[in-house]
Amino acid sequence: MDCVSLPPLSKFAICGGTHGNEMTGIHLLRHLQKHKVEKAGSVSITTVLSNPRAIDACKRYIDTDLNRCFTHTLLRTPITDSSPYELQRAHELNAIVGPKGSEEAVDLICDLHNTTANMGLCVIFNSTDLMALHIYKYIKSKITSVPVRAIDTREPISENYSLDSVGKYGFSFEVGPQPNGVLRADVFNVMKEAVDLTIEWIQQFNSGVTFDGGEAETYCPVNKVDYPRDPTTNEITAAIHPELQDNDFKPLQPGDPIFQSFAGETVKHEGKGLHPVFINECAYYEKRTAFILAEKITVTFPSICVKKDCGV
Amino acid sequence: MDCVSLPPLSKFAICGGTHGNEMTGIHLLRHLQKHKVEKAGSVSITTVLSNPRAIDACKRYIDTDLNRCFTHTLLRTPITDSSPYELQRAHELNAIVGPKGSEEAVDLICDLHNTTANMGLCVIFNSTDLMALHIYKYIKSKITSVPVRAIDTREPISENYSLDSVGKYGFSFEVGPQPNGVLRADVFNVMKEAVDLTIEWIQQFNSGVTFDGGEAETYCPVNKVDYPRDPTTNEITAAIHPELQDNDFKPLQPGDPIFQSFAGETVKHEGKGLHPVFINECAYYEKRTAFILAEKITVTFPSICVKKDCGV
Repeated sequence: MDCVSLPPLSKFAICGGTHGNEMTGIHLLRHLQKHKVEKAGSVSITTVLSNPRAIDACKRYIDTDLNRCFTHTLLRTPITDSSPYELQRAHELNAIVGPKGSEEAVDLICDLHNTTANMGLCVIFNSTDLMALHIYKYIKSKITSVPVRAIDTREPISENYSLDSVGKYGFSFEVGPQPNGVLRADVFNVMKEAVDLTIEWIQQFNSGVTFDGGEAETYCPVNKVDYPRDPTTNEITAAIHPELQDNDFKPLQPGDPIFQSFAGETVKHEGKGLHPVFINECAYYEKRTAFILAEKITVTFPSICVKKDCGV
Repeated sequence: MDCVSLPPLSKFAICGGTHGNEMTGIHLLRHLQKHKVEKAGSVSITTVLSNPRAIDACKRYIDTDLNRCFTHTLLRTPITDSSPYELQRAHELNAIVGPKGSEEAVDLICDLHNTTANMGLCVIFNSTDLMALHIYKYIKSKITSVPVRAIDTREPISENYSLDSVGKYGFSFEVGPQPNGVLRADVFNVMKEAVDLTIEWIQQFNSGVTFDGGEAETYCPVNKVDYPRDPTTNEITAAIHPELQDNDFKPLQPGDPIFQSFAGETVKHEGKGLHPVFINECAYYEKRTAFILAEKITVTFPSICVKKDCGV
């Protein structure tokens, strides 16, 4: 058969609350844990509430952004009592679903996130990850209630700082718009459907179904744009322009409005035509990012099927 | 002339950041302060960032909700080093724009708030406050970009716990939907227009224009509805139903869906027909309030004009 054969996915981890104020993953995980969802056919499922202290505080993080702590370097940094809480927790999570880069790591991690940006359902992965690409393709073909798109991180796994990089394969779901600290049923329903479809795909893959390759469009981040700021106080002096707000993924052309200053003036885009994503994401104010510009690329990928001699 | 004559409004205070993560008031106040907006014709304007420590932390409050600290009882409670920060700050604000109930208090306070609920522009006041009623009527006749509605607190001034109750007259603007910690230009533009119209109205009132009385519809809160919760953990087990979400002020009839449980079941409204407001407001999860039910009432009010012998 003309397909890349890969080992079955027998260990699957679903993580939520990696950011403690993104409520969909937190409530979905609690729901799965309450109903003891630990097995689906050939797949054993681990459910992890990633950042319990931040969840209790309903904050993104306590000391530092947990979803920036999973590089090989940080996971090898010795932990002391004065290490940031999230770095300590990253080492604990690495023991639960990793160790990253090892044979013992779970086969697949799916990490659940929300954004205040109008991103619909966005699957974030590195397009060298064949499993993530095929699962993205499957979900996109099934979900019709919101746009489904892919962000392609293109980061080598060792430098990838996100929790999902600890598994042999991995990706994040990013669903929005939803305010931090708030749970919306429409967003919950999309996230639940995407998780259910992922489990369905894994079962089909393990059972021997061949998934056809083909082409996929992904959005590859190329640079960040900060808000206009007061040079003395560093405070922002403009908001995202109403014509840009909520228009994530829509091509932005030179001359298009991007900011409206508090005095009412319009600031225009000066760079080349690209696709803005994470427009007005709450957590990115402190990262000095009003939006991220991404390039649309086409990824070609082969068919995959399960390796017969390791059937489950 | 057949009108109630009232003293001119010579001292006007605009407050923002009473909740430190409601960004519109914070940025509008900073903008006004940067441009030294201190006088508009006959009106002297005080601009106050109410809760600086919560603004720095981008949190609603540090120790307790500041906008619940302005009852006569709390303002008379002696302050010690162990008093909650917001109670200390309430006493400071009472000295700046009050003292509440005294001749020295500013004539009018307008306090700027945001909500994650789809409330449009909502003016919150006690309908016994003739100034607030007339300003509401004026703003409603001018703003067309979003629905403009009134919430009628009906609280005696001594028991009114909000900052705007410290002025001789007062009200809050509540604009949404906007996530906490996020600034949207559309919401900023509505808030700025409402503040500008308030200043315009005050100048016209002071200059001798008679404002006609009439009738106004207001929404009077009658009870709160909490989320379904797990009796053991107290965690919510359902989200606002998609058919209720974003439908603030739309009549809710017995049998209408109000919650969708995480298992997918629908919970229906059982009480009498009322108007839900503050649906899925972020800050009300901890107050055990999924939405507030309000009764629509019609308020009749007289014409008003400035007292001639105290013209400014």
